[in-house]
Parts: sequence; C-alpha cells; structure tokens
Amino acid sequence: MAAEADVPLGSTTYHFASLDELLVAALRQAGEGFAAAVGESEALSDPGTDLAAELARLMGQWLGGERTGVELEYELYLAALRRPALRPVAAEWTDDVATALSARTDPATARALVALMDGICLQVLLTDAAYDEEYAREMLGRLLA
Amino acid sequence: MAAEADVPLGSTTYHFASLDELLVAALRQAGEGFAAAVGESEALSDPGTDLAAELARLMGQWLGGERTGVELEYELYLAALRRPALRPVAAEWTDDVATALSARTDPATARALVALMDGICLQVLLTDAAYDEEYAREMLGRLLA
Repeated sequence: MAAEADVPLGSTTYHFASLDELLVAALRQAGEGFAAAVGESEALSDPGTDLAAELARLMGQWLGGERTGVELEYELYLAALRRPALRPVAAEWTDDVATALSARTDPATARALVALMDGICLQVLLTDAAYDEEYAREMLGRLLA
Repeated sequence: MAAEADVPLGSTTYHFASLDELLVAALRQAGEGFAAAVGESEALSDPGTDLAAELARLMGQWLGGERTGVELEYELYLAALRRPALRPVAAEWTDDVATALSARTDPATARALVALMDGICLQVLLTDAAYDEEYAREMLGRLLA
C-alpha cells in the first residue's frame, strides 16, 4: 500500500508510530493531490470558463486513471467512517477543494459541488456504472445556476 | 454486527456460506429500508409537496438516528468499493431510491439527487460536521429546478 499511495517507504518504516498515523499521512497526500489539481485548473481563475464542465472533466480524468489507485484513495477517505483520527484530514480534503472553488462561488455552493462530486464518484466506483461526463456537467451546472 | 443490522442470527448461522453472502444480505436489507422510507413518503405521490424539503427531512431523520447503525449501513454500502460481490446490491440501493423519486422527476435528476444525498451524508459522517437540513433542502432544490 505504501508504494501505491506514494508514501516513501522510508517514512513508513521510520516515522509512523501507528496505523492511524500512516493512514493520516496517506490520506493527506491524496487529498492534497486532488485539491491541487482543482486549484491549478485555469477554469477557477478565469470567470469566463464553464466551471461545471471543468469539474466534470477533472472527475473524468481522476476516475479514468489507474483504477486501483482511485479505489485506494477513496478507501482511505472512507476509512474516516470508522477511524476518528482520519476525520480532520477528510475534512481538510473537503475544505481544500471547497476553498479552491470559492474563487468562483459561495462557500455553501462550493461544499455542495464537493458533495455531488463525491456522490457521483461513489456511484461509479460502487456500482460499476460508467462515468457520464455530460451528466456530471449538467448536474454540477444546476448547483451553480 | 448481525444484531445491529437486523439480520436474524439464525439466518446468519445457518444460511450464509461466506462473508460476502452475509454482507450482501445485510446491505440489501439496509438499502430496502431507506428506499422504503423514501417510497412511503407522501411527498413523492403528492406533486404539491416540496420534494427537496421532504428529502432533506428524511436525511435528517436517518442521520439523527442511532449513529452506530447509520455508520454500519454506510460501511456496508462503501464496502462495495473492495468487494465486487456487493456492487450489484449497491446499485440496487441507488436504483430503488432513484425509482421511488422518478414519480416526481426524470431518471437523470433522480440519480443526481441520490448522488448529492450520498455526498452530503458522507460530509456529515466523515468530517463530524453537523447536518444542516436547510442547506440540504436548498441544494437538492437546485437540482430539481
């Protein structure tokens, strides 16, 4: 798992005193990656771009990646359900993406965009449904309208 | 777990040949419970009611229940991430709720309502955030607009 989550094995061996600590580090790294992808998107700084289309595109890119990695990142995120130590990090993930989105919309809408993206990803990952980028764009657009 | 998920212990002992089979039965039962709550809601048959408000109320009722039970139901649902045997059942859960909602809206919107409800529940369960029923009503309403 250390290798898949890009946590240097050295760190794993030397610095983590518990499984919770290791999971916290891995979840933080995964969350920062996605938030960075959202934050670096030009659509966020340019008010002339279609934000819903850009978010739908980013989701497609993420879901279209190597599926084992995507499943692991979601599994880390969802582990917060049973591991309270992970909850602040899961909250950071949500907050970081919402903050990146707040340049284009209000905080409540930003949080709802994150919730809908989570729900759409879940439907794809949990039910083996194909990702429908046009559907995602349409529904994210309604939240922004 | 058998007791919390309302699976009769007798069945657990006698009829499940594998952990996957037991989890499938428990997830199916949990999903039918939520879909039934949605399906029995008067707001679905009465076009004059505020569907977004009714869904937000149902989510509040569910999240306000005994938290261990809620977490277990979500954990079963999310286990489909790693257990392919659970995916058809997770898909049934989504489909059942979407079908119950289709009396009031088109299938794509119904699926998006389920996705947003999932995402909002995740934010509450994963980050220890309080459930905000008015926020949920507002955002579900935008999908229906």
